[in-house]
Amino acid sequence: MTETAVKRPQLSELGLSTGKRARLQRILYGHGLRNGTAMFLPYDQGLEHGPRDFFDNPAAGDPSYILKLAVEGGFNGVAIQIGLAEKFYWEYAGEVPLLLKLNGRTEIPDASRPRSPRNATVEDAVRLGADAVGYTLYVGSAQQEEDFEAFAEVRRDAERYGLPLVVWSYPRGEAVDAKGGKDSFWAVDYAARTAAELGADVVKVNFPNPSPKEGMRKEYTGQQFTEQEAVNAVVRSAARTPVLLSGGERTGDEGVLEKARQSMEAGALGVIFGRNIWQRPHDESLRFVGRLRELLSKY
Amino acid sequence: MTETAVKRPQLSELGLSTGKRARLQRILYGHGLRNGTAMFLPYDQGLEHGPRDFFDNPAAGDPSYILKLAVEGGFNGVAIQIGLAEKFYWEYAGEVPLLLKLNGRTEIPDASRPRSPRNATVEDAVRLGADAVGYTLYVGSAQQEEDFEAFAEVRRDAERYGLPLVVWSYPRGEAVDAKGGKDSFWAVDYAARTAAELGADVVKVNFPNPSPKEGMRKEYTGQQFTEQEAVNAVVRSAARTPVLLSGGERTGDEGVLEKARQSMEAGALGVIFGRNIWQRPHDESLRFVGRLRELLSKY
Amino acid sequence: MTETAVKRPQLSELGLSTGKRARLQRILYGHGLRNGTAMFLPYDQGLEHGPRDFFDNPAAGDPSYILKLAVEGGFNGVAIQIGLAEKFYWEYAGEVPLLLKLNGRTEIPDASRPRSPRNATVEDAVRLGADAVGYTLYVGSAQQEEDFEAFAEVRRDAERYGLPLVVWSYPRGEAVDAKGGKDSFWAVDYAARTAAELGADVVKVNFPNPSPKEGMRKEYTGQQFTEQEAVNAVVRSAARTPVLLSGGERTGDEGVLEKARQSMEAGALGVIFGRNIWQRPHDESLRFVGRLRELLSKY
Amino acid sequence: MTETAVKRPQLSELGLSTGKRARLQRILYGHGLRNGTAMFLPYDQGLEHGPRDFFDNPAAGDPSYILKLAVEGGFNGVAIQIGLAEKFYWEYAGEVPLLLKLNGRTEIPDASRPRSPRNATVEDAVRLGADAVGYTLYVGSAQQEEDFEAFAEVRRDAERYGLPLVVWSYPRGEAVDAKGGKDSFWAVDYAARTAAELGADVVKVNFPNPSPKEGMRKEYTGQQFTEQEAVNAVVRSAARTPVLLSGGERTGDEGVLEKARQSMEAGALGVIFGRNIWQRPHDESLRFVGRLRELLSKY
Amino acid sequence: MTETAVKRPQLSELGLSTGKRARLQRILYGHGLRNGTAMFLPYDQGLEHGPRDFFDNPAAGDPSYILKLAVEGGFNGVAIQIGLAEKFYWEYAGEVPLLLKLNGRTEIPDASRPRSPRNATVEDAVRLGADAVGYTLYVGSAQQEEDFEAFAEVRRDAERYGLPLVVWSYPRGEAVDAKGGKDSFWAVDYAARTAAELGADVVKVNFPNPSPKEGMRKEYTGQQFTEQEAVNAVVRSAARTPVLLSGGERTGDEGVLEKARQSMEAGALGVIFGRNIWQRPHDESLRFVGRLRELLSKY
Repeated sequence: MTETAVKRPQLSELGLSTGKRARLQRILYGHGLRNGTAMFLPYDQGLEHGPRDFFDNPAAGDPSYILKLAVEGGFNGVAIQIGLAEKFYWEYAGEVPLLLKLNGRTEIPDASRPRSPRNATVEDAVRLGADAVGYTLYVGSAQQEEDFEAFAEVRRDAERYGLPLVVWSYPRGEAVDAKGGKDSFWAVDYAARTAAELGADVVKVNFPNPSPKEGMRKEYTGQQFTEQEAVNAVVRSAARTPVLLSGGERTGDEGVLEKARQSMEAGALGVIFGRNIWQRPHDESLRFVGRLRELLSKY
Repeated sequence: MTETAVKRPQLSELGLSTGKRARLQRILYGHGLRNGTAMFLPYDQGLEHGPRDFFDNPAAGDPSYILKLAVEGGFNGVAIQIGLAEKFYWEYAGEVPLLLKLNGRTEIPDASRPRSPRNATVEDAVRLGADAVGYTLYVGSAQQEEDFEAFAEVRRDAERYGLPLVVWSYPRGEAVDAKGGKDSFWAVDYAARTAAELGADVVKVNFPNPSPKEGMRKEYTGQQFTEQEAVNAVVRSAARTPVLLSGGERTGDEGVLEKARQSMEAGALGVIFGRNIWQRPHDESLRFVGRLRELLSKY
Repeated sequence: MTETAVKRPQLSELGLSTGKRARLQRILYGHGLRNGTAMFLPYDQGLEHGPRDFFDNPAAGDPSYILKLAVEGGFNGVAIQIGLAEKFYWEYAGEVPLLLKLNGRTEIPDASRPRSPRNATVEDAVRLGADAVGYTLYVGSAQQEEDFEAFAEVRRDAERYGLPLVVWSYPRGEAVDAKGGKDSFWAVDYAARTAAELGADVVKVNFPNPSPKEGMRKEYTGQQFTEQEAVNAVVRSAARTPVLLSGGERTGDEGVLEKARQSMEAGALGVIFGRNIWQRPHDESLRFVGRLRELLSKY
Repeated sequence: MTETAVKRPQLSELGLSTGKRARLQRILYGHGLRNGTAMFLPYDQGLEHGPRDFFDNPAAGDPSYILKLAVEGGFNGVAIQIGLAEKFYWEYAGEVPLLLKLNGRTEIPDASRPRSPRNATVEDAVRLGADAVGYTLYVGSAQQEEDFEAFAEVRRDAERYGLPLVVWSYPRGEAVDAKGGKDSFWAVDYAARTAAELGADVVKVNFPNPSPKEGMRKEYTGQQFTEQEAVNAVVRSAARTPVLLSGGERTGDEGVLEKARQSMEAGALGVIFGRNIWQRPHDESLRFVGRLRELLSKY
Repeated sequence: MTETAVKRPQLSELGLSTGKRARLQRILYGHGLRNGTAMFLPYDQGLEHGPRDFFDNPAAGDPSYILKLAVEGGFNGVAIQIGLAEKFYWEYAGEVPLLLKLNGRTEIPDASRPRSPRNATVEDAVRLGADAVGYTLYVGSAQQEEDFEAFAEVRRDAERYGLPLVVWSYPRGEAVDAKGGKDSFWAVDYAARTAAELGADVVKVNFPNPSPKEGMRKEYTGQQFTEQEAVNAVVRSAARTPVLLSGGERTGDEGVLEKARQSMEAGALGVIFGRNIWQRPHDESLRFVGRLRELLSKY
């Protein structure tokens, strides 16, 4: 397999309807670096992990703090659940694009065969003036069938209303755990492709880890891949679906920035970092955002 | 009657839903002067009057020319019919806000009792990524009943999807002609109020002419009004419905600018000038736009 | 006004959805001259005029004869009503593209304020494997309001199903008759623009006659136009809506071919000739088709 | 124009869905002469004309008498309105095919611009076990627009449920009266074609009268036609839509039989005679039916 | 049992609606060999197996490469999932028929009782201008009930819109594994018949392997069958449902061509080969396609 990078796709190449194109144009060229790259601020951890994620910087538990940070930091968009959008977005309406997250779950129940239930509709997103919607797809879960079918309905609604559909494409479930785990190159590569095949407009994946090999098909075990090769492959597998790399748990800034750099080199659209942004004091957040902006300005 | 001006209403005063606010915020602070004033470019004359309006500047018959002019001139939005939006907006999608005009008619049939049929829906506007919709209301027409009922449906759809509804509120019909005509102070004043009462988010009116008196109620004939007093009254009658003043047929620049100034003094949101913009060569259009921008920058 | 020709628009410029593009590609490059021009065979005269149109060549009263002629002549499509499509198209299904005409009327009732009722739906067209649908719009009729509203529904269905919408845009009604008539330059020019503004994918108009001046706006009476200038203007007014020129009643071959040539020079998509094709014996029809093909092959 | 007869179309030529074909097969080969010809008994005169039609043979006012006659006479079907179908068909259900007439009117109101309202649905017909439905289309009426649109709905339902749709195609209205009247060759010819164009599966027309010429287009006045030539033309204009000839008011048996013979010679499917059958005593009815059967057995 | 071949069914024998016939006519006579045989290019392996299938020829991971190959190779159609159709088909719209695959799954979760979830609808296919839809039916799976019911909905939609329905009829599940496996003659024979019984318009099966006998009913174990006899039987069991033979994993060219030859001898419609086509360099792909075309040209 080759491991070269691809070129970041242009909006004009994506077969987008006028509405999807207008909204992505607004997100990518009317906000952030305005150069076609993207930097999103995700803030659904209060649902996905609970308030524990706010213990390091309690101010971040206040959605208003986060929306203000998104405006100050010049993000391309902020991803939140319907309840927070209803109560907090009106104050910042139109100042930063809203990416309404349509499904989500708590981490409390057993997660061996997860599915993320729909908590809002694309019509809710239209009503709130959102510029995009988000959906978490658990690729490989034993509930994959129900998940795909729910996703197909969301895709059709997004098509109907012209809203770009950002897919959190996450390998999950026992079968994934048995084959290298959710961050393994194989799993992330498959997840990126699955989102592309099923109709994502943008796909968000975790940074792929090329180390795990156990239980995988021979194609992934037959040779050793560097991180850059792995992320190159993932972006290529996404096949014209612009790719956002997540940051995941907060880790060291240099490591995060290096992964962001590798992602941009691979042809990614940009990054979607949450905890690495707001699990620190406000000024430090903005300083880190400044470094990210400097990086993205080069692509 | 008092004739003092009112203050231009702020978005936060208008009881707007989050979606309408997000979109108006985008229109008023993400485009144009970005100071809360507005300068729209209307381009439905090809339907309303036919190609004759393009004879003075044939280039203006090309919708692509107009969209480019809207981007270059830094307009807050461009108002077009569905057919042109489908074929031309994709190239400029997201670069200038789209105000989809939902109804419109040709000038050919007898116009003594006009109604403007709906050619597109609010859902079409959502699908195309429009930031607002427009509806022509013929206040006073013998078909007022059907018109109001059609408008009410549009208003409900605009509410449902969170799209601001801009109303072309035009006095029309035999009864209007018999009482000072469609530009008389009385008629424009009544039309502004009617749009406010029926649920416009923004109202577009012609500049009121305080001279005609014949056939009007005594309140309008008992005293003499200056143009400034008339436009003050119209903006006040609109009751928190931000007002856009139309330019109508092309006339002298100084007169147009003076009316724009009076409108802004009266507390209007801004202007919506079409033929006065594009019925002249491209460079002259931009020069005139420059003068308008200079004016609006003061409010 | 300038009177220069425009370039025939390319499919990639039209903002078409994938489905509309696939079907127009099939029509324009999989049939006919396969060079992007079009030659359609209309056959709704049995409804519009009654069987009298078949008296000159009774064989032409048999829809099977016409479908066979469309295949033999290598037409880009044949336009028929639902009843004939149901009973006859199955034998030629897929051999020549079907353009299902959705509305139509008999010439019997008073035609001073005409409207063409819908006899079939876009879904009927999909079900029958049609590649396009056709709608007659009577621009200027006193029933214009109902007509525009019916058209808007058809447009939305065509959008939903991805079928190209061909509009027979015909100036009609008392107001038209009083201003130069249905074939006058002014009326045809306005009709072409109206179809573009309302969302036609292709517009069919009569060849414009620049002679009548009575009752028209000054823009059309202030100068003299040649036929070529008139057809240039009409194609330009259609604004990226590809234009088909009708032939109307059977007239002399040389005159028809000259008008076809002028139309193609003006940037038209092609022609839609019925009676000039089939109101003559079969071999003569094919000979005339051969001359048309020779003409279109040059564009 | 040529005036030769056409061949009666076969079921396999008509592009019929399986359901329509099954039901027509049952009607044409499981009843009547079982040779593909048809003899229907219409009985909607009680609505269309009122009880006056039963004064000559009061027994015929009893629907049970008529249904029994249809069975005894070996008709291919009986055409009745929903009320009679509900109350009387259960006794003869399945013994003679039911053709449920879906629309009908009284003769009481002014008939200068008639339309026949829908009194039952295709779903009613399915529910009652009918093998076909009937619809009266008033070709040329000033209400033609509403009529065509209602017919289109019936056609779609008939398509959906697989029921053959028999159209009573009647020229009517002031414009028809002014051009030779409802039985004139021109009018009947146009009506036959209209039903074919709009999607009738079988069309019922009056026998055409070639004498009137006044007010007609030159094609019908330029030559003299015999009755045989006229009925030949009408059947040919119906273009694969099998034609039933009505009898109309009771007249002399020999004249009726001669018209039936001419119709069959022209390629008609058969006849639909009501008053000529049941406006006489029971035995005479059956004797006349016997003569009709003898005639049809030859085609 | 006899083991003779059957004749490939003609379109006119299949009771097809006009729309299905038009589209199959276009697929079979407007593309490929244009002789009624078919050669499809399936490309859903990115979803079904993940990106690993592209490791041998990374260029094949790019859907645009595949669509271009389908055009260059003169295929009768290309089968892809909705996401790729949305992003890539617009560039090749109408140049090669689109067979939209409506369901699909990843291979990650446990596959002992598989069901393939619906990711797109027949209406999506219509909207995109597809000429056919595809559905994977897992015959014998413990989830067969849900599968059949979902299939029945798809079949009804395909009927409603006139789109041919191609069924990937795959024996699957523990019960199949216990009785000779998914490629055994018994299992493939049963799957072919199942698709025919449930309403497939075309059925795609794996080449049957007559060797396994364990656990099967006596009819399949009582005698020895050759491969030719097995494939003859499978095509016959499909009962007028035209049969496509899959290639499965890439194997030697001679073996693949021999199976294709046996299939065509058996009366199959053609082949649907993916990995055997595109898991090799571009020029080799076209050379192999050339050999396939030569073979199909003889039938």
